[in-house]
Amino acid sequence: MSGNGFGHTFRFTTFGESHGPAIGCVIDGVPPLLKLSEADIQPWLDQRKPGQNRFTTQRQEADQVRILSGVFEGVTTGTSIGLLIENTDQRSKDYGDIKDTYRPGHADWVYEQKYGIRDYRGGGRSSARETAMRVAVGAVARVLLNTLAPGIVIRGAMVQMGPHCIDPGRWDWDSRAANPFWCPDAETVPVWETFLDGVRKAGSSAGGIVEVTASGVPVGLGAPVYDKLDADLAKAMMSINAVKGVEIGAGFLAAQLSGEDNADEMRMGADGKVHFLSNNAGGILGGISTGQDIVLRLAVKPTSSILTPKKSVDRHGAEIEVITKGRHDPCVAIRAVPVAEAMMAVTIADHLLRQRGQCAAS
Amino acid sequence: MSGNGFGHTFRFTTFGESHGPAIGCVIDGVPPLLKLSEADIQPWLDQRKPGQNRFTTQRQEADQVRILSGVFEGVTTGTSIGLLIENTDQRSKDYGDIKDTYRPGHADWVYEQKYGIRDYRGGGRSSARETAMRVAVGAVARVLLNTLAPGIVIRGAMVQMGPHCIDPGRWDWDSRAANPFWCPDAETVPVWETFLDGVRKAGSSAGGIVEVTASGVPVGLGAPVYDKLDADLAKAMMSINAVKGVEIGAGFLAAQLSGEDNADEMRMGADGKVHFLSNNAGGILGGISTGQDIVLRLAVKPTSSILTPKKSVDRHGAEIEVITKGRHDPCVAIRAVPVAEAMMAVTIADHLLRQRGQCAAS
Amino acid sequence: MSGNGFGHTFRFTTFGESHGPAIGCVIDGVPPLLKLSEADIQPWLDQRKPGQNRFTTQRQEADQVRILSGVFEGVTTGTSIGLLIENTDQRSKDYGDIKDTYRPGHADWVYEQKYGIRDYRGGGRSSARETAMRVAVGAVARVLLNTLAPGIVIRGAMVQMGPHCIDPGRWDWDSRAANPFWCPDAETVPVWETFLDGVRKAGSSAGGIVEVTASGVPVGLGAPVYDKLDADLAKAMMSINAVKGVEIGAGFLAAQLSGEDNADEMRMGADGKVHFLSNNAGGILGGISTGQDIVLRLAVKPTSSILTPKKSVDRHGAEIEVITKGRHDPCVAIRAVPVAEAMMAVTIADHLLRQRGQCAAS
Amino acid sequence: MSGNGFGHTFRFTTFGESHGPAIGCVIDGVPPLLKLSEADIQPWLDQRKPGQNRFTTQRQEADQVRILSGVFEGVTTGTSIGLLIENTDQRSKDYGDIKDTYRPGHADWVYEQKYGIRDYRGGGRSSARETAMRVAVGAVARVLLNTLAPGIVIRGAMVQMGPHCIDPGRWDWDSRAANPFWCPDAETVPVWETFLDGVRKAGSSAGGIVEVTASGVPVGLGAPVYDKLDADLAKAMMSINAVKGVEIGAGFLAAQLSGEDNADEMRMGADGKVHFLSNNAGGILGGISTGQDIVLRLAVKPTSSILTPKKSVDRHGAEIEVITKGRHDPCVAIRAVPVAEAMMAVTIADHLLRQRGQCAAS
Repeated sequence: MSGNGFGHTFRFTTFGESHGPAIGCVIDGVPPLLKLSEADIQPWLDQRKPGQNRFTTQRQEADQVRILSGVFEGVTTGTSIGLLIENTDQRSKDYGDIKDTYRPGHADWVYEQKYGIRDYRGGGRSSARETAMRVAVGAVARVLLNTLAPGIVIRGAMVQMGPHCIDPGRWDWDSRAANPFWCPDAETVPVWETFLDGVRKAGSSAGGIVEVTASGVPVGLGAPVYDKLDADLAKAMMSINAVKGVEIGAGFLAAQLSGEDNADEMRMGADGKVHFLSNNAGGILGGISTGQDIVLRLAVKPTSSILTPKKSVDRHGAEIEVITKGRHDPCVAIRAVPVAEAMMAVTIADHLLRQRGQCAAS
Repeated sequence: MSGNGFGHTFRFTTFGESHGPAIGCVIDGVPPLLKLSEADIQPWLDQRKPGQNRFTTQRQEADQVRILSGVFEGVTTGTSIGLLIENTDQRSKDYGDIKDTYRPGHADWVYEQKYGIRDYRGGGRSSARETAMRVAVGAVARVLLNTLAPGIVIRGAMVQMGPHCIDPGRWDWDSRAANPFWCPDAETVPVWETFLDGVRKAGSSAGGIVEVTASGVPVGLGAPVYDKLDADLAKAMMSINAVKGVEIGAGFLAAQLSGEDNADEMRMGADGKVHFLSNNAGGILGGISTGQDIVLRLAVKPTSSILTPKKSVDRHGAEIEVITKGRHDPCVAIRAVPVAEAMMAVTIADHLLRQRGQCAAS
Repeated sequence: MSGNGFGHTFRFTTFGESHGPAIGCVIDGVPPLLKLSEADIQPWLDQRKPGQNRFTTQRQEADQVRILSGVFEGVTTGTSIGLLIENTDQRSKDYGDIKDTYRPGHADWVYEQKYGIRDYRGGGRSSARETAMRVAVGAVARVLLNTLAPGIVIRGAMVQMGPHCIDPGRWDWDSRAANPFWCPDAETVPVWETFLDGVRKAGSSAGGIVEVTASGVPVGLGAPVYDKLDADLAKAMMSINAVKGVEIGAGFLAAQLSGEDNADEMRMGADGKVHFLSNNAGGILGGISTGQDIVLRLAVKPTSSILTPKKSVDRHGAEIEVITKGRHDPCVAIRAVPVAEAMMAVTIADHLLRQRGQCAAS
Repeated sequence: MSGNGFGHTFRFTTFGESHGPAIGCVIDGVPPLLKLSEADIQPWLDQRKPGQNRFTTQRQEADQVRILSGVFEGVTTGTSIGLLIENTDQRSKDYGDIKDTYRPGHADWVYEQKYGIRDYRGGGRSSARETAMRVAVGAVARVLLNTLAPGIVIRGAMVQMGPHCIDPGRWDWDSRAANPFWCPDAETVPVWETFLDGVRKAGSSAGGIVEVTASGVPVGLGAPVYDKLDADLAKAMMSINAVKGVEIGAGFLAAQLSGEDNADEMRMGADGKVHFLSNNAGGILGGISTGQDIVLRLAVKPTSSILTPKKSVDRHGAEIEVITKGRHDPCVAIRAVPVAEAMMAVTIADHLLRQRGQCAAS
């Protein structure tokens, strides 16, 4: 297989290019009897949808999802679920001028080296267009989790844009709804607005750091040794376009801590359950969920689609300078937030089903 | 499957606990006609072996590997390769006193929650003992790479211990051999020695950051969209005990760069081939190797096996304080270096074979 | 995963129910640069299409396939291929009366036991409607084989209908085109016509035996020990609706032969290559293709959709008698022929790519 | 991967050659808390063991199995289980004379074609020696089934040797113990004895047909569409050395039946459960277990290791005549019985765990 799928027991495989007729996927492994309809998926797609404000690409996609199978009279049947989204706003002519050129920082050149051909229209298969399907599958995973393990809440936020960090002390999940950045710190919003307006007007781009958390995850998910929950999450996140780093809990900072400071101590709670006094582990120990919040961060690079000329080469081996016109995001990290949430949801859903398949003799 | 294997076309599955009779693995997918013997594997195990200086655990393991199958008259036959290492220095009695206690920061508690049982002797399956088998498989992967894609060099180094970083300007791969830290900067060695002696004497522990590079990797390895080379590397590294973060190329720093600064420009080399003028991508674009050095870093937390009492609970729900005696590494990041090298080797080997299986019509 | 996919390196996953809006699939692992268009697929679908004569179900499906991705400017790009066929002639009302009844010999009852729900319209996911997608994927596999291993010819024929066998001595592949039964023996055609007309008029059904051969398969395909080529073919064939038996080469007859009579002797051909003097092995030894014709047969049971009342139960536990109206095939073995051909093609394509991924060091 | 593993959720991978130092495997996916020791495995190995009477090869193997991991204080821990059997009676010199010759009907020639090398000692990896490990894994699967789905009984018998069939009317499972053929019909035993003595003295060999049944299997196992329970069983059985055909229930005979005669009617039993009035389906409908006995048969060819000279070629392209000395079974079907039982057990165990991982909401 050439790598277009993810997951084991909850497994999905996607297809579709940026400027082809449609994108879609098959989800295999959804248990039966879950209530599911397009209305469970569409709102998440609408959130991710481009063109909603001046800080994301102006491409206009309806992103209307259709469930083609696996649901009967409003509930899942246990058979494979086909999802389809027609592409409606492909302007392939925008990309005709990059047919023969390789954009620096894009996958153009390596795709051609690997495959001997590339669909140059909008990045083809390497386009972030594919992430719409991740969000759709993520919505199905949320339905699964809500039914089989109620109480799990998966949320993402942007915590750094370019050099500008939020103040974690002002974190308020609800404030995300009031700004176009998934920013959980209202006071940082105007800073980012000013910064990103400048980036956009300069034809440049900015990177960012996204944090995703999952609360209410049951203890015991994760399959050591190689399919540790954090290992699978790292793969899930690193597979998102433009992501260059992933960390769990204390992450890279843990390298500087002493064993005393890093260890999360345990105490018995008033509820008779084990509680942890800190969460440097990010909710995962030995690859297995502890029941604490799973906390991870991903670093997103600035897109290379910029208006400043950059040195490159063309298909004929000539040295050229490239600028990338078209409709691009000045900060792709913004739209990575719902995608990262979706990948968190599918990874947890997969491990939830895996755990059920391995449960103990009683 | 419960997660004890890694890879697709080059796939291995390991078994064994810290204090069981033996650890071992099966490697499935090694092509035939590779010259292979125990002598290709043993030196890498000897490098990783504990007890070689005061900065690693004093457990003494011969770590003698035996090839049980898949090799005939000195070459691989294309059939599955069984590897076995007998455990010889298990002192299980060292661990009797943690039978009923959960060490903070260890997998003790979650294993018992997940499985309803745990092999408490030395961490059982969650022990870093398992990584010996990763190193052995990594050695086989190196043989494969040396034969099928000669010129690949995979090397790791520690670049930060606790708060002390190396100076990248003084990087010298050869200097690693002269110190017990895989340190590529000779001037940093005494700093780390002093620091780690202090940590060790205090019964504490330190974290670290490891960098692994692969030079000479062919262009075109990696299987978008989900099995991107960097996604699989992220999983490979995050699956190593105590790793809390992974980054590729510019990594988390990329979040702060502008699109102009981050893009790796391309030019035609005197050799008629495309060359990159920088390597913020870390050798991977769109999930596919570019032919540049693959560069990744992993953050290793300090082990929780320390002599300072930490709050915990026991199997009976009593609140206790735990100190962890036994033979432990003051800085487990040191021994993570050869393990990370091995995981780099197996991931590249897997994708090399995958690429061969997908190669173009001609 | 819940089992809706097949293959490893060439892997496809299907979705869709008999009476849903569409059926489709994703094929992952097709190498780049193969010439491919709908015109390569449609003729095979047309062959399988129902309603073409009085011996198959009168359901009328256009079965127009669309390629939604993975092909650019007429050639494959190495990315996943999405295929879609809209269902156009669903008459769900035909099935309203079986909503609460379990047809004997059908999957109705076990689906409801397994999933707690079933899409009763036309059998839902258990319907042979799904096999249209197998035929479409088989057509893609044929393109792959024609390009990467030219000279492979895969053909199927029906060799027994009910109690009536063909005479192998009269075998003529070309004669298949002149009858609706894929019958390779022109003299048997009128026998089957008379027989099946009687079966049809009686509201009964008949079984059959299908033989599929693959000529020109390269030596060396197949992955012992468990993924033997014949083991994978057996799975492929047994996964087809209504198949109850599979045999390779001499098959069940081999049980009666002596070692002397069964062994296929070898001699050097005038072309300097090894030739076999017989083919009891059916082209596979030790799970690996020998270069001889691969020959297998599958037994197809008579469909249980008949007009004779049969004892059954309903959803409420009442004992009932069931007859199955609707548009059914009197002999489903007929339409199994192109499906079996397709599964032969995909299995060989998968092993061809697997073999390329495991090829020897040179 | 090169095909040395079987199963999904209960998955094992084997290694080892006929004349290497050892054979072994890793089982991944066994749930925790099952009571397991070598004493659960050894009796099944002893049953299969060669050299116990004049009708099987005179090779003497102790076949002592060791559990190397995954079991602690007598119960499984949920981690991977390593099994090892040392080879003790390899007489490689017996095979020196076939180093350069290809035995007709054996895998010698295709292995060399595929891999460019073969371990000629006793067939190397293609030897039935590997089946000892299948029997060992089958024993673990039985423990799993006995605990998680008590009441399943898996039994095999030989029902035809060469041309001599048993009388099904005299079937008595208990009578198997009193003869060396797994024959369930005491009156047939002397017929087979006489027949096989003749075969053996003539230096010839005979084939046979084996029937395996599983009683007490829960309703609902099997994962349509491609991983149907019967499809996976067909693969499991066809992967056994020398098997040339597999059929379920009525099998090839079903092709001759009418729809009326083939359909298994249903009635409500006195116990309030659905009962079937016949079992032409062999316990599987639509790929899903019905709760009836699963019944399958496999055809085993006569071994090609015979004393009659047969035409062949050698490595240098010379035409030769080959006789195969050594210690061989005159009827390998006998020893296929426990192997087929084992493969039935592992396939059902895998699907039992898969079903648990897909179970319904609520």
